[in-house]
Amino acid sequence: MLLTFIGVPVSVIGTLMHWPSIFLFIIYCLTIIALSSYMGRATESLAIVAGPRIGGLLNATFGNAVELIISVFALKAGLVGVVLASLTGSVLGNLLLVAGLSFFIGGLKYKRQKFNVYDARHNSGLLMFAVMIAFVIPEVFSMDMNDTKKLSLSVGISVILILLYLAALFFKLVTHRGVYQSDNEAQHHDEEPEWGKGRAILVLLIATLAVAYISENLVHTFEFVAESFGWTELFIGIIIVAIVGNAAEHASAVLMAFKNKMDVAVEIAIGSTLQVAMFVAPVLVLISLFFEKSMPLLFSWQELIAMVSSVLLMVVISNDGETNWFEGLTLLAAYVIMGIGFYLL
Amino acid sequence: MLLTFIGVPVSVIGTLMHWPSIFLFIIYCLTIIALSSYMGRATESLAIVAGPRIGGLLNATFGNAVELIISVFALKAGLVGVVLASLTGSVLGNLLLVAGLSFFIGGLKYKRQKFNVYDARHNSGLLMFAVMIAFVIPEVFSMDMNDTKKLSLSVGISVILILLYLAALFFKLVTHRGVYQSDNEAQHHDEEPEWGKGRAILVLLIATLAVAYISENLVHTFEFVAESFGWTELFIGIIIVAIVGNAAEHASAVLMAFKNKMDVAVEIAIGSTLQVAMFVAPVLVLISLFFEKSMPLLFSWQELIAMVSSVLLMVVISNDGETNWFEGLTLLAAYVIMGIGFYLL
Amino acid sequence: MLLTFIGVPVSVIGTLMHWPSIFLFIIYCLTIIALSSYMGRATESLAIVAGPRIGGLLNATFGNAVELIISVFALKAGLVGVVLASLTGSVLGNLLLVAGLSFFIGGLKYKRQKFNVYDARHNSGLLMFAVMIAFVIPEVFSMDMNDTKKLSLSVGISVILILLYLAALFFKLVTHRGVYQSDNEAQHHDEEPEWGKGRAILVLLIATLAVAYISENLVHTFEFVAESFGWTELFIGIIIVAIVGNAAEHASAVLMAFKNKMDVAVEIAIGSTLQVAMFVAPVLVLISLFFEKSMPLLFSWQELIAMVSSVLLMVVISNDGETNWFEGLTLLAAYVIMGIGFYLL
Repeated sequence: MLLTFIGVPVSVIGTLMHWPSIFLFIIYCLTIIALSSYMGRATESLAIVAGPRIGGLLNATFGNAVELIISVFALKAGLVGVVLASLTGSVLGNLLLVAGLSFFIGGLKYKRQKFNVYDARHNSGLLMFAVMIAFVIPEVFSMDMNDTKKLSLSVGISVILILLYLAALFFKLVTHRGVYQSDNEAQHHDEEPEWGKGRAILVLLIATLAVAYISENLVHTFEFVAESFGWTELFIGIIIVAIVGNAAEHASAVLMAFKNKMDVAVEIAIGSTLQVAMFVAPVLVLISLFFEKSMPLLFSWQELIAMVSSVLLMVVISNDGETNWFEGLTLLAAYVIMGIGFYLL
Repeated sequence: MLLTFIGVPVSVIGTLMHWPSIFLFIIYCLTIIALSSYMGRATESLAIVAGPRIGGLLNATFGNAVELIISVFALKAGLVGVVLASLTGSVLGNLLLVAGLSFFIGGLKYKRQKFNVYDARHNSGLLMFAVMIAFVIPEVFSMDMNDTKKLSLSVGISVILILLYLAALFFKLVTHRGVYQSDNEAQHHDEEPEWGKGRAILVLLIATLAVAYISENLVHTFEFVAESFGWTELFIGIIIVAIVGNAAEHASAVLMAFKNKMDVAVEIAIGSTLQVAMFVAPVLVLISLFFEKSMPLLFSWQELIAMVSSVLLMVVISNDGETNWFEGLTLLAAYVIMGIGFYLL
Repeated sequence: MLLTFIGVPVSVIGTLMHWPSIFLFIIYCLTIIALSSYMGRATESLAIVAGPRIGGLLNATFGNAVELIISVFALKAGLVGVVLASLTGSVLGNLLLVAGLSFFIGGLKYKRQKFNVYDARHNSGLLMFAVMIAFVIPEVFSMDMNDTKKLSLSVGISVILILLYLAALFFKLVTHRGVYQSDNEAQHHDEEPEWGKGRAILVLLIATLAVAYISENLVHTFEFVAESFGWTELFIGIIIVAIVGNAAEHASAVLMAFKNKMDVAVEIAIGSTLQVAMFVAPVLVLISLFFEKSMPLLFSWQELIAMVSSVLLMVVISNDGETNWFEGLTLLAAYVIMGIGFYLL
């Protein structure tokens, strides 16, 4: 934990003094992972205070704020392909890597872990909507369209995605709050939070800012790292950004799984995927309209099929409201296969 | 309700006197919607007498008889593309618009609405079969086939679709009648029908004939409406035909949802989709063999992917035997996305 | 049953004396089917001794050993396309024909047949992984790859498939043995096996060897049969190899369904599919590296879409842990549609 207090100032000094990129790359990564564990603890405290759903929501929000900021800077620089790749990476990373790791590690300790099956089905419907409808339709329809129509379609779909995302929050937090809550979830409130509400929020805020600052610098080292290791920008966008950018989700989801709070772990992994697909992605499409080069919601076929396959796999696996180590391993194996695919592309 | 008694004669007079197309278009639409509400009431009466399954079946039959008649005339005129578009529109309209509206409006009144989960799963299997197998296979296999083989494949699949549809009726009404019936359904019989069996059937018959007559004239106004508003024939086939042609299903499905009879509402929406995909479509393929231009069961890629995505979304959403307003909104949002897509195509 | 004692020596004599191919073809097929019924009885005896899961596993192993041996010889001869077609045929044959027949015939006797829903969901996840991820990803990603990268991707995915298959066995037989077992399954042990453990294993071994010997000769008659009947090699690989090569599974799965032991029937049909997709296919890819012509894990688009559609149909149908005759008929209808498609290709 001392790594954070060393890592952050070292990162700042290193950046200002233009240390070698590979060296900075490693420092940045370690610092972000250290900060992530802080965010994990803060989120856990908040989750106990606020209940599993809002706790998970907070977690997903703080995890993706980083990604949104980085992507806006990348869009400003015209790197549309890298942004789409990092969105794909986030979806795959959350669905396969974060969920896979928490199911696997949680499953090593507990034989069968259960989570709220209503939430799982609600999330499955949204995953299908976001990926199978909102991402697939522009891809297939734009084959016979000119650029203006492609963009109109993307903008229309983005507006609908954001509206449905807001409706989903309204559904979860207002009209159907607690309707699908199990007795099991209600008992979580008995535990005592490590930190108070105020302190947890403060830690979360500061850690998020620090992560954002370091992440942005991290991105600039990618070009050199890519050259040194012979990786493509697509591979970095999809795999490296997904692992480092979602380190916060990783840490806290796995922690929750290890404590057998699968409701929170699933909410972090799938909720985070949904936030990327239904909020971060469409907001970036709309923001890109103000920049020189606008971003249509058009992934490459490889990215699209990878996301569709992952969503279908997750829907089938999470459908029964139970997990075990083997389901986690299956998701991880799928992630490795996609990783090899994007590496060789 | 008086609209019907004014609308029908006005429609007949307007048609004979060749009033302006846009004006006729509006009269036709309003009259059909008025007639639909009558059909809804008649079907509801019959549903109470005959039980939810046969009631829903009757409803789907009377809704799609109209479509079958219009399509036969269109095929005779060689409009193969328009017929395929209107089949797609019917599938999308029933699955997303009719089901979406009834889940949404029913969900505004009731927090959680339940329906027979066995029926839902039976229907899911058939939806997968009809769309994922019977519609997808000819599309993918015919890429490497000549026209004769394409048509042979379409005819073979059409015969299988019709036979399986008849087997499904045999299953539902004979061998497994009431096997999966819940206690909840049995209580429906306590209600009193608004109209007697004879009167309800008479109203249904007359209203269906009137709807058929007006619908046919409505189709002829499309060309002018398309020009006036700048819509493509594809868009009219998929969106307008779906909305007006399924007005009867809309009215009664929403009515049933509002009365918390979700079994009937789901049976209308999904049963109607299945009837279009497994009966109307293959019958049209076989009938088209007697006309100059025969119709293979080959949709455009956009139509096919739109149907596949919708079926997968519906399977995931209906799988748990429960609905709420948000699930309805999700289906409606998917419908709007498809609408924008087909409008821009 | 006497057919076996006549069929085997007649097959050997016929092969050595080079009787006409069509005649040998019929003798071989009948003998294999006769041997299959023996294997069915032996497996059933073992299943009673060893419990439904290991019994089903044994069955799948003995059924696919034959296929593995034939495929290795075919790969040695450079017939990569035929091997991929026979893998597709095995997947489709097990998922649609074997499962379809056992659901249908079992359903004619019993109104509702139940099987362990946990096993079904575990299998669904693996089916999705094997087909939607491991088969689809190389196909989509290799569009933009050269031959070396295609092969690297195939080899990487093959290794992961084999490792996950072994992990699945470890999960089923060690860490989660009996965890998801229902009371219903426990009662199976009361029955008395027809043959003792030793005798059943001996019969299984001898019958498997005989089937392997005859199957190999059978393959050599295909060329002549194809010419005589005007079938393509693709059609023979997919349909004929699937029916004859899986005769053992057919016989015992249907037998088990008829005895209302749906756990075993489903385990044979789906377990056998998984073994082909997750073990036989990747092992063949790795073995092919030692031959002149190596085999990448790249199916034709028609084969791939046929497998994807079948898996999705099976996942939706088996998801509820119940079957009836109509679900079986739906699977059979899907098989007939694929058969027509591959016949016309």
